[in-house]
Amino acid sequence: MLKRIAAFGEVMMRLQVPGYDLLSQGNTLHYSFSGTGVNVISALTRFGHSGQLISRLPANPLGDAAAAYLRKLGIDSSFVVQGGKYLGLYFLENGFGARPSRVTYSNRLESSFNTAPEETYDFAGIAGAIDAVHFCGITLAMNEGIRQQMKSLARAVKQQGGLVIFDCNYRPSLWGEDGYAKAKSHYEDMLQLADIVLMNERDALFILGMSTTKEQREEQLVELIPAVAEQYQISVIAGTHRYIHSDNSHSLRGFLYKNQSFTFSDMLTFSVYDRIGAGDAFTSGIVHGELKGFPPEKTVRFAAAAGMLAHTVSGDTPLASEEEILRAMTESVGDVER
Amino acid sequence: MLKRIAAFGEVMMRLQVPGYDLLSQGNTLHYSFSGTGVNVISALTRFGHSGQLISRLPANPLGDAAAAYLRKLGIDSSFVVQGGKYLGLYFLENGFGARPSRVTYSNRLESSFNTAPEETYDFAGIAGAIDAVHFCGITLAMNEGIRQQMKSLARAVKQQGGLVIFDCNYRPSLWGEDGYAKAKSHYEDMLQLADIVLMNERDALFILGMSTTKEQREEQLVELIPAVAEQYQISVIAGTHRYIHSDNSHSLRGFLYKNQSFTFSDMLTFSVYDRIGAGDAFTSGIVHGELKGFPPEKTVRFAAAAGMLAHTVSGDTPLASEEEILRAMTESVGDVER
Amino acid sequence: MLKRIAAFGEVMMRLQVPGYDLLSQGNTLHYSFSGTGVNVISALTRFGHSGQLISRLPANPLGDAAAAYLRKLGIDSSFVVQGGKYLGLYFLENGFGARPSRVTYSNRLESSFNTAPEETYDFAGIAGAIDAVHFCGITLAMNEGIRQQMKSLARAVKQQGGLVIFDCNYRPSLWGEDGYAKAKSHYEDMLQLADIVLMNERDALFILGMSTTKEQREEQLVELIPAVAEQYQISVIAGTHRYIHSDNSHSLRGFLYKNQSFTFSDMLTFSVYDRIGAGDAFTSGIVHGELKGFPPEKTVRFAAAAGMLAHTVSGDTPLASEEEILRAMTESVGDVER
Amino acid sequence: MLKRIAAFGEVMMRLQVPGYDLLSQGNTLHYSFSGTGVNVISALTRFGHSGQLISRLPANPLGDAAAAYLRKLGIDSSFVVQGGKYLGLYFLENGFGARPSRVTYSNRLESSFNTAPEETYDFAGIAGAIDAVHFCGITLAMNEGIRQQMKSLARAVKQQGGLVIFDCNYRPSLWGEDGYAKAKSHYEDMLQLADIVLMNERDALFILGMSTTKEQREEQLVELIPAVAEQYQISVIAGTHRYIHSDNSHSLRGFLYKNQSFTFSDMLTFSVYDRIGAGDAFTSGIVHGELKGFPPEKTVRFAAAAGMLAHTVSGDTPLASEEEILRAMTESVGDVER
Amino acid sequence: MLKRIAAFGEVMMRLQVPGYDLLSQGNTLHYSFSGTGVNVISALTRFGHSGQLISRLPANPLGDAAAAYLRKLGIDSSFVVQGGKYLGLYFLENGFGARPSRVTYSNRLESSFNTAPEETYDFAGIAGAIDAVHFCGITLAMNEGIRQQMKSLARAVKQQGGLVIFDCNYRPSLWGEDGYAKAKSHYEDMLQLADIVLMNERDALFILGMSTTKEQREEQLVELIPAVAEQYQISVIAGTHRYIHSDNSHSLRGFLYKNQSFTFSDMLTFSVYDRIGAGDAFTSGIVHGELKGFPPEKTVRFAAAAGMLAHTVSGDTPLASEEEILRAMTESVGDVER
Amino acid sequence: MLKRIAAFGEVMMRLQVPGYDLLSQGNTLHYSFSGTGVNVISALTRFGHSGQLISRLPANPLGDAAAAYLRKLGIDSSFVVQGGKYLGLYFLENGFGARPSRVTYSNRLESSFNTAPEETYDFAGIAGAIDAVHFCGITLAMNEGIRQQMKSLARAVKQQGGLVIFDCNYRPSLWGEDGYAKAKSHYEDMLQLADIVLMNERDALFILGMSTTKEQREEQLVELIPAVAEQYQISVIAGTHRYIHSDNSHSLRGFLYKNQSFTFSDMLTFSVYDRIGAGDAFTSGIVHGELKGFPPEKTVRFAAAAGMLAHTVSGDTPLASEEEILRAMTESVGDVER
Repeated sequence: MLKRIAAFGEVMMRLQVPGYDLLSQGNTLHYSFSGTGVNVISALTRFGHSGQLISRLPANPLGDAAAAYLRKLGIDSSFVVQGGKYLGLYFLENGFGARPSRVTYSNRLESSFNTAPEETYDFAGIAGAIDAVHFCGITLAMNEGIRQQMKSLARAVKQQGGLVIFDCNYRPSLWGEDGYAKAKSHYEDMLQLADIVLMNERDALFILGMSTTKEQREEQLVELIPAVAEQYQISVIAGTHRYIHSDNSHSLRGFLYKNQSFTFSDMLTFSVYDRIGAGDAFTSGIVHGELKGFPPEKTVRFAAAAGMLAHTVSGDTPLASEEEILRAMTESVGDVER
Repeated sequence: MLKRIAAFGEVMMRLQVPGYDLLSQGNTLHYSFSGTGVNVISALTRFGHSGQLISRLPANPLGDAAAAYLRKLGIDSSFVVQGGKYLGLYFLENGFGARPSRVTYSNRLESSFNTAPEETYDFAGIAGAIDAVHFCGITLAMNEGIRQQMKSLARAVKQQGGLVIFDCNYRPSLWGEDGYAKAKSHYEDMLQLADIVLMNERDALFILGMSTTKEQREEQLVELIPAVAEQYQISVIAGTHRYIHSDNSHSLRGFLYKNQSFTFSDMLTFSVYDRIGAGDAFTSGIVHGELKGFPPEKTVRFAAAAGMLAHTVSGDTPLASEEEILRAMTESVGDVER
Repeated sequence: MLKRIAAFGEVMMRLQVPGYDLLSQGNTLHYSFSGTGVNVISALTRFGHSGQLISRLPANPLGDAAAAYLRKLGIDSSFVVQGGKYLGLYFLENGFGARPSRVTYSNRLESSFNTAPEETYDFAGIAGAIDAVHFCGITLAMNEGIRQQMKSLARAVKQQGGLVIFDCNYRPSLWGEDGYAKAKSHYEDMLQLADIVLMNERDALFILGMSTTKEQREEQLVELIPAVAEQYQISVIAGTHRYIHSDNSHSLRGFLYKNQSFTFSDMLTFSVYDRIGAGDAFTSGIVHGELKGFPPEKTVRFAAAAGMLAHTVSGDTPLASEEEILRAMTESVGDVER
Repeated sequence: MLKRIAAFGEVMMRLQVPGYDLLSQGNTLHYSFSGTGVNVISALTRFGHSGQLISRLPANPLGDAAAAYLRKLGIDSSFVVQGGKYLGLYFLENGFGARPSRVTYSNRLESSFNTAPEETYDFAGIAGAIDAVHFCGITLAMNEGIRQQMKSLARAVKQQGGLVIFDCNYRPSLWGEDGYAKAKSHYEDMLQLADIVLMNERDALFILGMSTTKEQREEQLVELIPAVAEQYQISVIAGTHRYIHSDNSHSLRGFLYKNQSFTFSDMLTFSVYDRIGAGDAFTSGIVHGELKGFPPEKTVRFAAAAGMLAHTVSGDTPLASEEEILRAMTESVGDVER
Repeated sequence: MLKRIAAFGEVMMRLQVPGYDLLSQGNTLHYSFSGTGVNVISALTRFGHSGQLISRLPANPLGDAAAAYLRKLGIDSSFVVQGGKYLGLYFLENGFGARPSRVTYSNRLESSFNTAPEETYDFAGIAGAIDAVHFCGITLAMNEGIRQQMKSLARAVKQQGGLVIFDCNYRPSLWGEDGYAKAKSHYEDMLQLADIVLMNERDALFILGMSTTKEQREEQLVELIPAVAEQYQISVIAGTHRYIHSDNSHSLRGFLYKNQSFTFSDMLTFSVYDRIGAGDAFTSGIVHGELKGFPPEKTVRFAAAAGMLAHTVSGDTPLASEEEILRAMTESVGDVER
Repeated sequence: MLKRIAAFGEVMMRLQVPGYDLLSQGNTLHYSFSGTGVNVISALTRFGHSGQLISRLPANPLGDAAAAYLRKLGIDSSFVVQGGKYLGLYFLENGFGARPSRVTYSNRLESSFNTAPEETYDFAGIAGAIDAVHFCGITLAMNEGIRQQMKSLARAVKQQGGLVIFDCNYRPSLWGEDGYAKAKSHYEDMLQLADIVLMNERDALFILGMSTTKEQREEQLVELIPAVAEQYQISVIAGTHRYIHSDNSHSLRGFLYKNQSFTFSDMLTFSVYDRIGAGDAFTSGIVHGELKGFPPEKTVRFAAAAGMLAHTVSGDTPLASEEEILRAMTESVGDVER
């Protein structure tokens, strides 16, 4: 029953100032390798699926280190190509309480992934070897070549009966001025190809240009998401509402819209250690629930708990097992396990 | 008025992943050496008593490092024997918020302490040189030889007029299947020898097999502890109720039963930095209060404050001085001391 | 419109045990260089002013490291003299929750700064090159020679039309027994020379020996501060009330008294990462507001937000830019900035 | 032409005191996972072969961390079983110059690998899936059950036409008193099954009980190795002579005996950073040369250079690529590669 | 007599794996900021000159950290512009003995410096404010815009009577295929503008296409350098011959050609800790000697000793004072200075 | 046969920049506690003697940390008094090859030890409890009060039949201008009280003002040491000649003069990791040989080997056991011990 899932996406090097120092204070960085696809696929391998990444890494010591890191995360790298010269990277300065975290990117547009020639990947072969494929809006923002690759692969998977998952994940800084206008048609292409979509009412309003008279986020959500599902023929739409508090804690509530019906998780409130990548943990929970045929309520609660736990580990990539997430769904916080 | 106190117990090496990483994420461990006896005795030396450990360490660089660490903690190692080959050790992965801490043990049954031959220690000589001795339920779970050594030493101390302290400290994983049944008679032996016992209503219910119609922990405690004291002729029984919250904070309330009367500390609520060993700090507070003849209310409040402060330092071993604990009993949290 | 500001004060080396360990547990220290003047001036350079330190550093590798650190902080060291042999230093053990932080000083009285011969600095020349000068009560506590230097420099600046800023910053441990009596006349000298003073009602009560029948801090403040301003002819008096909570959070409320009128910031409550030096961030905010002619309400809110943010970075020295402080004044806590 | 190679052997956790400190000085350890089989197989995957480990890891966080580490090293873990409770581990204190390194072992006999039940592995299935298998004398020293597993697997591979590689690697401390006598028949069994053997004249003298009138190591080697090859029908015997100097440098000379003829590498002299596991790099070079059909001189020079480079990286596991080794065989030391 | 010197060049972030680990082994990097110009200018400020950098840094936290680091090095950043988005960076894996160091670059062509618009710098104003300017061949390799800026600035300085220093520093990987042909005319332009040139016979042979019948490096040098000086009308040409040994030591010999006469330093042999940037220390020594009017022998010996000492400190940037270099020229290695 | 030995001396905090960085480069320090007396006594406890320190530590967290560290080193602290406020400390920047190490001191004259009131120690009681006492010339340089304490204690030990050991250890920077003249009479007082003296010909020449016509150090030694022994009636004089090489290695040769006869060790040459405190290891070897009645040749070879091994461990304090030193005397460098 476990599935073969792949993600198409860039591997980024994360360079993090330890503790809560700024770049101008320290002289040391912790590094790891991640990416939306990496995070989702790694989480799914922990739930027992077989996971692969479709990507391109530089043929140099950075690319070698990234490939070793992917293997450590449990990701099969048979579809990873080595070529090109650069790896996208970002610097992370952790915020604390009233001070927000800061992320500074290198020029990822020159990366091996974002400069991969058209014929880099054998999409037909890949599509035949997998049950589902994951894409995200960050990749969609890169350049026209990458967008073509995304759409080609999505079509290939769809043709061979596989599942297409798309996480809207709109990042204003990547699309630049008039970003929503530039992005709209590409998002629409992906939504038309997708079976499972991660988004919330803001994506509908800003990217798709929908409108509502409602003012509460919750009411907007309930009005707009069904319209999106209808218009683009999407089976499952899921997402979260997040609220950030001043004491290093967040609140998170997940929703799942399927078969014309909404299911919500409880609002979870929890201390946050590392916020980055937690959205990908939620995605992995939704995908796992759908792949294993969980009832909607179990799926959305599983995804929300997966999201919550991902805030408690360092790094972008979720590390919880299915068993740990199931326990977090049902039990109160426990004492030391010994 | 200060006393000579010894503990009989194993020294464990603690290997902790720094920060909140998992073993599969990191490549560095912090190490220290501890143990219930080590923790209680070290705390008591900080209160001015002279403290000794009765234990066995391997005759190799690990044993040398452990012995140096004990000395650093202020523990006299004249009763520590070097022999055998292994030191028990455990790996600690710190939890964060919704994610619990995890402890993974090595095979401590092969340790120098747990394989010490019968004639390793001169119990009569030791008993003559001390005023009190501390044992705990973890040691009782090891093997039959160790249990015999515990009981022999307890009897020797009792015969020479010393005080016997016993901390029930039942760990289900150490006793295995049907653990309560296996443990009961050994616990009864120790309770009959003990003057001061650390436990709460759960030990009475599960180990001693007592029963109650009450449902609230507090009511069960008040019903069962006097029965235990009566049945096993125990002068002092003390313990805590602990409540764990989702924001890295705990609440703790101590009790002391003596002369047919209960005394309770306030319920203390505090942020937790390192939970392991905090129970031993409570024990050290009870023992110190009894040895110095504090009135029961001062003893239980001192013990609870000692326990609270032990949650705020890294490592298993309490580090607070008597003065610091007295200040924590009476004052609100202070600004930087400078 | 940006100004040339100098501070007269000692540079201290801060030696901090990492994390929450005690000196007797660890074997590593983080070091940095700070001081009230360093902190205030560095913060002001981040707001765009040009900042200088008037101080003396040893002519050895410690002095070289301190000078490099000052430059890194953006401080112009043209008025820093190298001579003498020692640098004042302090050890910091971070508290956690119920356990307060501890600071242990070296013998700073022997430092290059505190033993600087009378003719070390060219006060007339310096006064001609700056718009404002900052002093603090810590320096005033050092020795008679230093006090003479402070007063000479303050007079020189005043004569040339510059602004004199004085932070009362009374530290009982520095003045010793009968400290308030010893300190009073020196504080009075400085208050008479000062245009902007940082203090609160406690300084009025204890150092200046004023009295009040009020019992609430807020009421005492409102009664005493106007009297101080009147008596010593001070244009601006500002300060804070701080409240420390048991969960590593503090509350802070700033006030500004100017033109016979009080302005208060909101009471801000926030998680604390590093409390030391946060008062200097508040000072820098008041000075910046006055130098740029902010309305009083903006000044005190800016200063309070600067103070709050300074609790969220490591080290004594504030690092926030004007833009970051303005954003913290108006927005709720944000998500990762990327 | 690249091959499928497996090794049967234990995974050990290496816990290393950083720098040149002793365990009694430090409080931090670096950890990694290794083992003779791990090292040889990982090196071979870097040369382009597909490599697998046949082993058993505990079903706990230590086992998970070891499995992730193996994947990072490029090792396929399909034949790794999770079960049992313990992982063998050793502590390493680096020597410096005149002070030798020290290794302290935990009780590896209780490890998951060494307590694996008879039916743990599907040896027939494994033998069908590989071209060659590697064993070593350390594994042979463990216990009778493990020895049976070794011999069963060796026979299965031989039956299916695969190559059997055996590294004598005799460790006196593992066999105890009268170790050579205990070990002899087991070594003979393995030598009879092996096609490629790693050993030198000392193994012939001490384990196999051969004798010689020669006194020089080189002469003994030339006399004894052909006799061993003859007696046990071994195609290839290879090994090294190592000389340790007082300035953190070693000299190493490799030999290869094949088709009744000796080939020797030059004596290489080089600075040593991490000596452990360097023998396994030599083994990997011999195996690679044989699998790819290098002429003997190229094989032994490749193996010696692989061994030399393995002394220059931290950790037990060789990390050089085929290209880097070929370059080290032909070029003098180079400047920074940029 | 001390001078105002500027360098035109890129600031790079150096990201170094600690110790001797590879990128695929570690998870931590040390970072610093350097560049040929940074190194030369910082060294000259330690000799008492005033030093400035002419460069462009991104307007983000990386740029802020770089600017702070330059100030810490003693460099005046009045001519540093903030703009653009990226900082060039490189990863360094330290070699050990037989294993060479490896450097992996990010895409520096997209850096703020290399994309600076034509009008970024006020070259006339800058030229008026300095006595000398330093350029290097790495900058020349970047792109046509940068080359124009270099030449414009060199001409402006020359016009105003300043000294032009040019370090040939040819890096094959930066010029790509047919690099020497592409580079030749640009090098000739710079040589015609330069007063002091750093190079050796290889630059004459490969970049300038000169030829010789001599085979020894020393003989080639003596034949070719006078011809270069003659042809391009260069006052001073200086450089080194370096020999790399297998035991982490190097040998270095400096030469100085001036007034038609060669001067050589002794061949220095020394242990190497960090090789990168040591050439810039040699340059700084030559420039300092020329600026202060040292006799040629003192200049070349000073430069060689400065180069030697730069191999003994971490980071690219030389840190020795004039006094320390003078002592290293005359004394044998000393004991601890205390 | 093992003895009770005490040392009278100051405990210093050593603050070391890790690796080979300068103070102006790093932000981290490693700390430990040492002192000539600490080093000698700790080494002797490792040889089986019971060792005590006679000293005074501040009554604050620094003093507590120092006391814990002494206990860890195996030193009995019954004669250590807590009082005063400051601990002497020094900063160490490690040299590398051609760059010497640098030590920067804090103001140790204000330390608890150096300001101990006259009546701090019970010298008569101490003298009755020990077999030997160790002093050194560093302590003699401090101030008149300390010198009186030294001489009083030496006399008390001598009166009660104990052995007085004196290490000349002249440090020019501590005695200042005309240091030899100031020091002479105090050294003479100590030499007259001493039974075992550590010195070489330079002390005779410079401190005692002796003269010789010989030019070679070896010849001067052989001429002057017997004259010193004669004049001050010293039973045993021992010391070393040290030669420092440019490749991080030193050579060391020990001598012992006793019963009118010289014995020399071989000249040992070895790689150096941490040079500080190695002289104290030599002293401990001489003292141990004398206390155990080794023949002179064994004593001087043991002391030289102890000195050599002390260069291979970090920190000031020797850590080798008697067995390790005996092995280093007889064997060549060994492979990993496992």
